[in-house]
Amino acid sequence: MSNESDNDLIFKALAHRRRREILDMLKDAPRTTGMLCEAFTDMDRCTVMLHLKVLEDADLVIAKKEGRERWNHLNSLPIKQVHDRWISAYAGHALSILDQLKKDLED
Amino acid sequence: MSNESDNDLIFKALAHRRRREILDMLKDAPRTTGMLCEAFTDMDRCTVMLHLKVLEDADLVIAKKEGRERWNHLNSLPIKQVHDRWISAYAGHALSILDQLKKDLED
Repeated sequence: MSNESDNDLIFKALAHRRRREILDMLKDAPRTTGMLCEAFTDMDRCTVMLHLKVLEDADLVIAKKEGRERWNHLNSLPIKQVHDRWISAYAGHALSILDQLKKDLED
Repeated sequence: MSNESDNDLIFKALAHRRRREILDMLKDAPRTTGMLCEAFTDMDRCTVMLHLKVLEDADLVIAKKEGRERWNHLNSLPIKQVHDRWISAYAGHALSILDQLKKDLED
């Protein structure tokens, strides 16, 4: 995630819940495009492939061809970088304070 | 971040680079709306307030009134939850493998 254009792609990709569901599935294990199509029966193959393209453009999915199959891997590095941008090394401490502030404001 | 509708709001909010810049500024310290308007001289007050509203709807900014001033605080809890959704406790190890895979694919 070298610049803001990359970030635009990342958040555009994450903004669609079906793409988040695809990432959820890839978190468990890499899947072929065929496996993903079977898992999401309510989407046709073209739609799944379009979602994968958006995820790949954002570098959230890395595809690796093996023979005739295309294995899709989750790349969580951009997500880690999003985290590191706004959550410092003192995250645990800061988050506790913010969590308390949130509760105070909600009371 | 209890459900996917909350996530829609979070990624919509993060999708705009000016809003990411506002969060960058709030990471350093809470700011009043006036301070943010002074920092972003190329945006008028209404635009800054609209961006803050989107961030607040996504729970990424928590506003606290003190007298006539409105202090905006970064709430990084949703960002931590995004991280935790796709990066497991074994993150360090997994990220190393993925990082290597990425390098292999790029070579």
